[in-house]
Amino acid sequence: MIIMNLDKFFSAKSIAIVGVSLDQTKVGHIIFRNFIDSKYGGRIYIVNPHCDKILGHKCYKSVLDIEESVELAVIAVPAEASLRVVDECGKKGIRDIVMITAGFREVGNYGLDVKLERLLKKHRIRCVGPNCLGCFDAHTGLDTLFLPRSRLQRPGKGGISFICQSGAVGSATMDLAAKEGYGFSKFVSYGNAMNVDEADILEYMGNDQSTRVICMYIEGIRDGKKFMKAAIRVGQKKPVIVIKGGVTSEGGRAILSHTGSLAGSAEVYFGAFRQCGILTAESLQELFNYARIFDKSICACGPRIQVITNGGGYGILSTDAIMKSGLEMAEPSAQTIKELRRRYPRLTTSNPIDLLGDASTQMYRDAIELCLNDRKVDALIIIALYQTPRLGTDVVDAIVEMNRQNRKPIITVSTGGEFTQNLRMQMEKNGIPSYTYPHEAVSAMKVLVEYCRGRGICRR
Amino acid sequence: MIIMNLDKFFSAKSIAIVGVSLDQTKVGHIIFRNFIDSKYGGRIYIVNPHCDKILGHKCYKSVLDIEESVELAVIAVPAEASLRVVDECGKKGIRDIVMITAGFREVGNYGLDVKLERLLKKHRIRCVGPNCLGCFDAHTGLDTLFLPRSRLQRPGKGGISFICQSGAVGSATMDLAAKEGYGFSKFVSYGNAMNVDEADILEYMGNDQSTRVICMYIEGIRDGKKFMKAAIRVGQKKPVIVIKGGVTSEGGRAILSHTGSLAGSAEVYFGAFRQCGILTAESLQELFNYARIFDKSICACGPRIQVITNGGGYGILSTDAIMKSGLEMAEPSAQTIKELRRRYPRLTTSNPIDLLGDASTQMYRDAIELCLNDRKVDALIIIALYQTPRLGTDVVDAIVEMNRQNRKPIITVSTGGEFTQNLRMQMEKNGIPSYTYPHEAVSAMKVLVEYCRGRGICRR
Repeated sequence: MIIMNLDKFFSAKSIAIVGVSLDQTKVGHIIFRNFIDSKYGGRIYIVNPHCDKILGHKCYKSVLDIEESVELAVIAVPAEASLRVVDECGKKGIRDIVMITAGFREVGNYGLDVKLERLLKKHRIRCVGPNCLGCFDAHTGLDTLFLPRSRLQRPGKGGISFICQSGAVGSATMDLAAKEGYGFSKFVSYGNAMNVDEADILEYMGNDQSTRVICMYIEGIRDGKKFMKAAIRVGQKKPVIVIKGGVTSEGGRAILSHTGSLAGSAEVYFGAFRQCGILTAESLQELFNYARIFDKSICACGPRIQVITNGGGYGILSTDAIMKSGLEMAEPSAQTIKELRRRYPRLTTSNPIDLLGDASTQMYRDAIELCLNDRKVDALIIIALYQTPRLGTDVVDAIVEMNRQNRKPIITVSTGGEFTQNLRMQMEKNGIPSYTYPHEAVSAMKVLVEYCRGRGICRR
Repeated sequence: MIIMNLDKFFSAKSIAIVGVSLDQTKVGHIIFRNFIDSKYGGRIYIVNPHCDKILGHKCYKSVLDIEESVELAVIAVPAEASLRVVDECGKKGIRDIVMITAGFREVGNYGLDVKLERLLKKHRIRCVGPNCLGCFDAHTGLDTLFLPRSRLQRPGKGGISFICQSGAVGSATMDLAAKEGYGFSKFVSYGNAMNVDEADILEYMGNDQSTRVICMYIEGIRDGKKFMKAAIRVGQKKPVIVIKGGVTSEGGRAILSHTGSLAGSAEVYFGAFRQCGILTAESLQELFNYARIFDKSICACGPRIQVITNGGGYGILSTDAIMKSGLEMAEPSAQTIKELRRRYPRLTTSNPIDLLGDASTQMYRDAIELCLNDRKVDALIIIALYQTPRLGTDVVDAIVEMNRQNRKPIITVSTGGEFTQNLRMQMEKNGIPSYTYPHEAVSAMKVLVEYCRGRGICRR
């Protein structure tokens, strides 16, 4: 098994962007602009035979004119000009290119396809694309997405990597992730997957240190056997979550005119996913809800969930969601409950523990600590209503601190406006997944427990 | 049938707040402070026997000392003092009170309960509460919620009213609604429902002009027959959507120690809801997703959905969601497709119509207009990727303008960060529901179509 080395696509130290125009709305210009605005620390060369300078930077007529070595080329010229550019890249010794350019197989231009493929082979070039957004790395700042940063935010550092067959789905969800505070490692929109396909990228991410969980949006798979082999290997190392586009026959037809992939039978796909230990999501919301818990949480060693809240109704809705999901409500030990009531005689509940409307940070701290020590509790869902006047915002620090001890999975629910949203972001940034609604937290917890059970980590 | 007149709870012109303390963290103080910060235009009197002035406002020793008439009293004194206050309210001629005070039946204090009930009867007082947050009206600014505005935003004006048996659930979701731009009419947290119960409030909302859709969170119902009668009457006038807490036996047990209600069998409840034409939601997310479409959209006259997007993957995910939901993908007429391709020869799809990555506002305008004119299309789901550099933000104005013609339901999906979120808010504020994920839009559309079908509006 040879794993394709895709390092340069995420951490090249010198990059040539070919096709940077003076026009600010053009793809090449936007990519260049984004590099200027990013924290990418390598060297950038821009190529445009018709300009001398763009945004104060020297323009090269061709990659061949660049004296220094170049590790990665990002090509954003029209399709008809692209072959010449690729050939020059090959001559320059560039072995990795991101081909943003569209106008190949996806519009029926099979002739151009064949020529490009031949050229890539001749120069032994690895090519992400054509017809793609390319690559993004939150850790290195490398970013070939031709979407302006003023319109599309980039997410911060984290452990989620996303392999995406749709540029639109990938970019819009990264934008959302940035706003919501989910941390990313790498993103790849691989377009037509000419010689770097989803299996190659998956395999690479499986070995990538900073990737803790892999998300995929897949319309069709180029080589089923290759994909399954990769998925089985990677699935043993870290969670892989897939959302499959075209699971209905109408969706499958839509795929044909989108990426030209054959959607295939949904049953076959899902069967194969199951066989490889791949988790599946029904919606983009689920995909990232699941990814966040895997990025942040330690494994759950059982399905017995303790709910702690200061909002009675939230406790009830969470209880319903837990029971419907197939998880269990923990039954905390008599010791735990006795101690809790000794300290707070007004509390009468055991699970959910309702700390009542005037709960304090200390009450949360005590309740959480007792449950973390209780052998009859496997994981915690905490729903703090930050809006209540008596609850200090230091409740977030308390939860973060206790979560750092890595004793049991802790996830939170934070429903609310700006005040609550800021506290929610603090949680996310400090390693605690925080969901808007109880049912989201429960379904993510369910997937975590199932995953751990499948790997023999759950003792029940 | 006598409908209880609850007007004063939402539009009293003079209000006495009893139990306003100097302590900023105390309930009475926060309520008063919120009134000062709100746009409520009526007169406010504050009562506290131990103070002369609070925040520069005169304090009365008792409501009996207020010379002018008072239409509504908001009582936030300790339980033991509350009976005297209620008695004084009665003597003052106040017939409507919001009783924030807790410490009655819900903590086992049945004796105090009986005394309060007797007193209310004696003075013929309508009482929302005790043990509640009370009332909020986005149109008049009346607001008895004891949650600081700095922590809990209030939603803007709209047609959603929310009757909520949990203060926490109600307030947190209103806070979220404010942030997300959903418009509210009225909100009631009715606590122990001593003599104004969920059926009375429901009946009132049914006749309320500014309420277009009613949401309810219910743990238990006090009087099943009364509720069903009200629900049937109201259900004929406007949509009622319920989320039931305690649908599992564990959730039911949690309810007993929360509001002391008997949760009852979920099957019985859901059977009754169906019989009354009440819609049910599985989660808070669904509840408001549904409410938003009813608040904004005209009725759907059929299940044939047209998807228009400039993000291929989004089109596919939407198609899958539509087919899985039981809705249908519209098959636009040959005329529509021919005209679209005449204008934009690069477009090759019919449903979803993929306007491609470099779509312009004019392309969206043309595609929407053609579909609005097409008899084979019943409703539209539009997924504009605002992040793409060629799409002007005026696409929002175009969609808003075409939606104003009220020809077919139009809903949108807007996934993204701040830039997209601002455009999403613009949509919401201009009468177009805009969801974060395709599956949300589809499930809301499905409920709209089902509702219209049940009322004979759908022709298929």
